[in-house]
Amino acid sequence: MGTDTILYEEIHQQPDVIELFAQAGQDMVRSLASHMRSADIRQVVVAARGTSDNAARYAQYLLGANNRLPVMLTTPSLFTLYQKPPLFAPNTLVLGISQSGRSPDIVSVLAEGRRQGCVTAAISNFGDSPLAAQADHFVALGAGEERSIAATKTYTAQLFAVALLSAHLADDPESIAALRRAPELIRQTLSLNSEVERLAERYRYVRNCVVVGRGFNYSTAFEIALKLKELTYTLAEPYSSADFLHGPVSLVEPAFPVIVVAPTGVLTPELEPFVRQLRDMDAELLCVSNDHSLLQLGRTKFPFPPVPEWLSPLLAIIPGQLFALFLAAARDFDPDRPRGLQKVTETL
Amino acid sequence: MGTDTILYEEIHQQPDVIELFAQAGQDMVRSLASHMRSADIRQVVVAARGTSDNAARYAQYLLGANNRLPVMLTTPSLFTLYQKPPLFAPNTLVLGISQSGRSPDIVSVLAEGRRQGCVTAAISNFGDSPLAAQADHFVALGAGEERSIAATKTYTAQLFAVALLSAHLADDPESIAALRRAPELIRQTLSLNSEVERLAERYRYVRNCVVVGRGFNYSTAFEIALKLKELTYTLAEPYSSADFLHGPVSLVEPAFPVIVVAPTGVLTPELEPFVRQLRDMDAELLCVSNDHSLLQLGRTKFPFPPVPEWLSPLLAIIPGQLFALFLAAARDFDPDRPRGLQKVTETL
Repeated sequence: MGTDTILYEEIHQQPDVIELFAQAGQDMVRSLASHMRSADIRQVVVAARGTSDNAARYAQYLLGANNRLPVMLTTPSLFTLYQKPPLFAPNTLVLGISQSGRSPDIVSVLAEGRRQGCVTAAISNFGDSPLAAQADHFVALGAGEERSIAATKTYTAQLFAVALLSAHLADDPESIAALRRAPELIRQTLSLNSEVERLAERYRYVRNCVVVGRGFNYSTAFEIALKLKELTYTLAEPYSSADFLHGPVSLVEPAFPVIVVAPTGVLTPELEPFVRQLRDMDAELLCVSNDHSLLQLGRTKFPFPPVPEWLSPLLAIIPGQLFALFLAAARDFDPDRPRGLQKVTETL
Repeated sequence: MGTDTILYEEIHQQPDVIELFAQAGQDMVRSLASHMRSADIRQVVVAARGTSDNAARYAQYLLGANNRLPVMLTTPSLFTLYQKPPLFAPNTLVLGISQSGRSPDIVSVLAEGRRQGCVTAAISNFGDSPLAAQADHFVALGAGEERSIAATKTYTAQLFAVALLSAHLADDPESIAALRRAPELIRQTLSLNSEVERLAERYRYVRNCVVVGRGFNYSTAFEIALKLKELTYTLAEPYSSADFLHGPVSLVEPAFPVIVVAPTGVLTPELEPFVRQLRDMDAELLCVSNDHSLLQLGRTKFPFPPVPEWLSPLLAIIPGQLFALFLAAARDFDPDRPRGLQKVTETL
């Protein structure tokens, strides 16, 4: 159950997609990075929706931490419905991220950026899209047609594109080398497949849960939550561990499921007491981690290989994708045909 | 039930709090606006958490639409845990919004802004707070002690402070005059009290729901959802109507509760087909609106008085606060003592 789906296939294509991008995408990314340096780009405005918006969240942390760039996730309705776009400072890059490149609101943000004289760039699977047409720089994901409605391989390809951009901007050979190992690490993480299939059964009747992540993996929390909503119709709400303590923690009662994305890194000393607090409240903890002691705190453990924290979102999402797939299957839902969704969503 | 609580009292104090701020706060806000003009501020970075972060969302739309300023909601962990804050462009205002002014992560963002030579400002209930100490401009909410753990009167005071700042920045006497009517309009909206108390009963057994709003009222959707989580332990997830269609719409099954915040304004032509689509899916619709035809589409109607759209968040939140209060009471929860929460949450 679940393994005979297009979604399963596409999840397992991810190492190959990333491998391909690592070759074919280098030049496009290098040229964007070089233009950003010569144009003295000082801030980045990103327009994206859905899964692509979660890749934008990653960009916010990665370009912030590793390139010291302020990254603003913009509000497309100011550009479309209100027709009162903010006036960007000089030295702004306006970046659109979109699988299809066809949502009119995202296209509008790039068009306005261009009108204001900003450098524009698009990361998309389609070079002939309206979004690409507004971009000075087009970064092709080259992920091949994504037939599942739920995005998986285009998401990790977007993350990889962002990570490669950050590494080239910083001109950091160590990061570029680390990225070369990504396809193999994703392959290793995918070996969790059967284990996740078995573990998903326990959650057949879960109606709602929260997914917690912070920093680089704030993106992962959002993307796991989105997959769970799209595929399993679980009301899964994403949170940073800090925001969660400012109110929503009151939701937790015994057996309430909390998925925590907690990689080894800067956040470990912060996340460990957080996870212990949830345990003391008798939450049902599902840990996505490559930290041995954090994993042990989880009732359900989704391990992934050791990797620098900034790169961990590329791996940490994999168990989330598999979990959503197999939970949908355990519920007799068709992962290839989520109700109420189309592949391309055009919003204003 | 519910009416003998501190929360009830504080919700009903809001017209007086706003009236007081409209007098005592004018000069502080005018001085900040004047400094922003003389320093040629071109973008705003806001640091906030929880309810205050929802006021920040309002600032993002209002300062964007009415003052054409790009507003970035920042990621405090880059300043604290990662210790790699982004480098802000010159002409940036760094603004902290916090009821207590005591959360170390929010204070760190302001301290870093000051270190980088940015203009800093704080909106808080406490002038002797560490946040105020980092601010070139302090805007005192003057809301009086907020004894409830769930913030209500400090939220509307924050919204009002942001709206007044926008009006002074634009030097727009019409907006300033419109703001003068706010206390009376809030008072009128509060007359819904008994009606909301009666309507809340129907939702006693709701376990989860979504709250949809867009543009200026994206903030309202987040804040209604947060009150429902804090006070009633309902898993209530906020969405923009556009993001909702990019995935989460698949959650909707017959009787699934969707609260839609849909004021008269630019968004009406966008929200009406959205609401009709939800109706066709047999969702249980709760409409918070001042548009007659949109209200009629709701199974449950929360009307508020006519008001320009940019000002509607000050009114649209009121039925949400009352609904959360009376739903908590209908569930025999104590609205004054939500489980697991303290008034001041200090996060890093």
